[in-house]
Amino acid sequence: MMLSRKIQNISESLTLVIDAKAKKMAGEGQDIIGFGAGEPDFSTPDFVIQAAKEGLDKGLTRYTPSSGTLQLRQAICRKLERDNQIKYSPEEIIVSNGAKHSLYNVFQAILNPGDEVIIPQPYWLSYPEMVKMADGIPVFIDTKEENSFKPTIEELKMALTPKTKAFILNNPCNPNGCVYKHAELAAIADLAIEREFFIISDEIYEKLIYDGMKHISIASLNEKVKSLTLTINGMSKAYAMTGWRIGYTAGPKEVIKVMGNLQSHSTSNPNSIAQYASTTALDAPKDEIKAMVEEFNRRRLYMVNRINDIPYLSCELPKGAFYIMMNIKQALGKRYDDILINSSLDFADLLLEAQKVTVVPGIAFGADNYVRLSYAVSMEQIQRGLDRIEQFMAELE
Amino acid sequence: MMLSRKIQNISESLTLVIDAKAKKMAGEGQDIIGFGAGEPDFSTPDFVIQAAKEGLDKGLTRYTPSSGTLQLRQAICRKLERDNQIKYSPEEIIVSNGAKHSLYNVFQAILNPGDEVIIPQPYWLSYPEMVKMADGIPVFIDTKEENSFKPTIEELKMALTPKTKAFILNNPCNPNGCVYKHAELAAIADLAIEREFFIISDEIYEKLIYDGMKHISIASLNEKVKSLTLTINGMSKAYAMTGWRIGYTAGPKEVIKVMGNLQSHSTSNPNSIAQYASTTALDAPKDEIKAMVEEFNRRRLYMVNRINDIPYLSCELPKGAFYIMMNIKQALGKRYDDILINSSLDFADLLLEAQKVTVVPGIAFGADNYVRLSYAVSMEQIQRGLDRIEQFMAELE
Repeated sequence: MMLSRKIQNISESLTLVIDAKAKKMAGEGQDIIGFGAGEPDFSTPDFVIQAAKEGLDKGLTRYTPSSGTLQLRQAICRKLERDNQIKYSPEEIIVSNGAKHSLYNVFQAILNPGDEVIIPQPYWLSYPEMVKMADGIPVFIDTKEENSFKPTIEELKMALTPKTKAFILNNPCNPNGCVYKHAELAAIADLAIEREFFIISDEIYEKLIYDGMKHISIASLNEKVKSLTLTINGMSKAYAMTGWRIGYTAGPKEVIKVMGNLQSHSTSNPNSIAQYASTTALDAPKDEIKAMVEEFNRRRLYMVNRINDIPYLSCELPKGAFYIMMNIKQALGKRYDDILINSSLDFADLLLEAQKVTVVPGIAFGADNYVRLSYAVSMEQIQRGLDRIEQFMAELE
Repeated sequence: MMLSRKIQNISESLTLVIDAKAKKMAGEGQDIIGFGAGEPDFSTPDFVIQAAKEGLDKGLTRYTPSSGTLQLRQAICRKLERDNQIKYSPEEIIVSNGAKHSLYNVFQAILNPGDEVIIPQPYWLSYPEMVKMADGIPVFIDTKEENSFKPTIEELKMALTPKTKAFILNNPCNPNGCVYKHAELAAIADLAIEREFFIISDEIYEKLIYDGMKHISIASLNEKVKSLTLTINGMSKAYAMTGWRIGYTAGPKEVIKVMGNLQSHSTSNPNSIAQYASTTALDAPKDEIKAMVEEFNRRRLYMVNRINDIPYLSCELPKGAFYIMMNIKQALGKRYDDILINSSLDFADLLLEAQKVTVVPGIAFGADNYVRLSYAVSMEQIQRGLDRIEQFMAELE
């Protein structure tokens, strides 16, 4: 029988073949060094673990309101006011099963068939699929490395059409680590107000930011842009709580209400214990986040310097998140062991074969001249991994 | 800006107004007795709580595979073979954020625009909305109380068209408590094979079954019907784990794969700690389930007898789940305090006003001659609540 044509057309992960090969090699006892990590290599802070246990002891194991407990939504309001200078009320907040689910629900709630959503490229790989699942059309802006992978306001204007419904602002950005400055955000905000489109502001990497930069939430700029913005965030990256699956959306009441209705018929509430633990986490001091960011920063600087010292490789200094887009353009067209490297997939595959190092091919993010390296990996692994990459590059012909 | 027309058309809960009124009255300190409960009034068994704490201590707080851990999927396979006599392999299983999410993903994965899904009425209220969210068309069979709310095979045949893609078999059924016998399932299975449609077998109430009846999974009948069946189940009702949000789907590999792809781009893995605790729960002895079912049975028999002794009210003896469909047809057209009772909504509203008792109006399930009473409520509350209902009925004119 014919399954859903739409869902069957959703891309499977392009990196699946390499992932499978790496897993198989690791299973055979081979010493694989992986730069693919998409989550902090830190444990959930102990006080959050304790809060979860407290929730279990209190018997908080029943349904909560489908959009999240009032207590958690209130804690999110406090967080958004304190950290981001945006005032929301609890009915402008919905808690979902991770920020990925928040984004999915946003697109389902705002898009009609044929609506266009503008996505700067390189992009997080689920954005285009989410837009398509909501019958929308992804429209890409191919950003430039010399612009730190940020679209210029002219490029954004060029992408607008009467069908434009939303622009995805991933700030800080996975995979390229760019962070938007006040003036850049103000220009985007003005354009959104003038041309009337939603801004989907994915701020999940907000706390992972370096070089003294400050994260700015676009919804904090003024009331007009706030009324067009869906601010997405969650517990995964800042609190090393990826497995817990708590994300949230803050935005105009009408959108949040439609999302709540959708969620009530599609998943109901996120895990009740995770909601309780998240409530505690959001109100706590940020010491553990600070320590984590310092460690990420140390690795980031080391990696960027090492990479830029390796012939045919280069990278920008990313300002946020925990990823580096490594430029491999000069390696394309070369050969390893007489095999031609034609693409980021070839590069990643040969690097795994030859040196047992995994990276994510840039084609997964719409950027075939790059591979992505994560620094959510121990310093010792980073050093050994880069030694191997250096060796690999030395052997290219 | 125009939000999604489709999602805006999703019904809000019809019971929202009454729910809000009841909450307000309870907030004012009024002594409300609620028969609306949709979850066991028991706590999650202690050994499951302990397993969750163990998972927290082990640091199982990171991403798991998007479709669920291999350990949990293996435990589900063991459970399905042991309890339901169906053999599945882990790649035929996907774990989602509760059985509601499993169902949502199934419809997204199998429906194309205009596909019809047959739903016996009275139905669980999210079924039609889920079908519509996947661009399908719900087709209702209005079942008869004298048939214990089960569609006859003739009624099912009459509902089939070339557009029929699936039939929802909710066994045992919420809201009406019906349980299907072997011969009934065999007839449905034969028809599904002959006319080629999917069977969505929602078995979430499987363990809550009375009068010595045995739950039969339709996929266990033969390999042919198994290849057309998506078996849905979860931890919520049998293990009093509603807030944990762990449900699962077992079915043909091709469907599970499409669902897995969808889930990887829409929510990722369900809560990692809940997955670990569920793995432990599924392999444990069923003592606590047995005790819970005995208590539900005691309440069920008491309620059915009491209701059938009240003038103008009646009900069937439900064979499963924890709900009673109370027939109020003879009360319609009567007046309370000079206010005409025209519908199940009127009945529920007046009962709340007059006697501070909440029931769910049948219109929410497509059955306006009924209200639903849950017996996931303490015996003491049940007794007092029925006293009040009796008083209310005595005052009708």
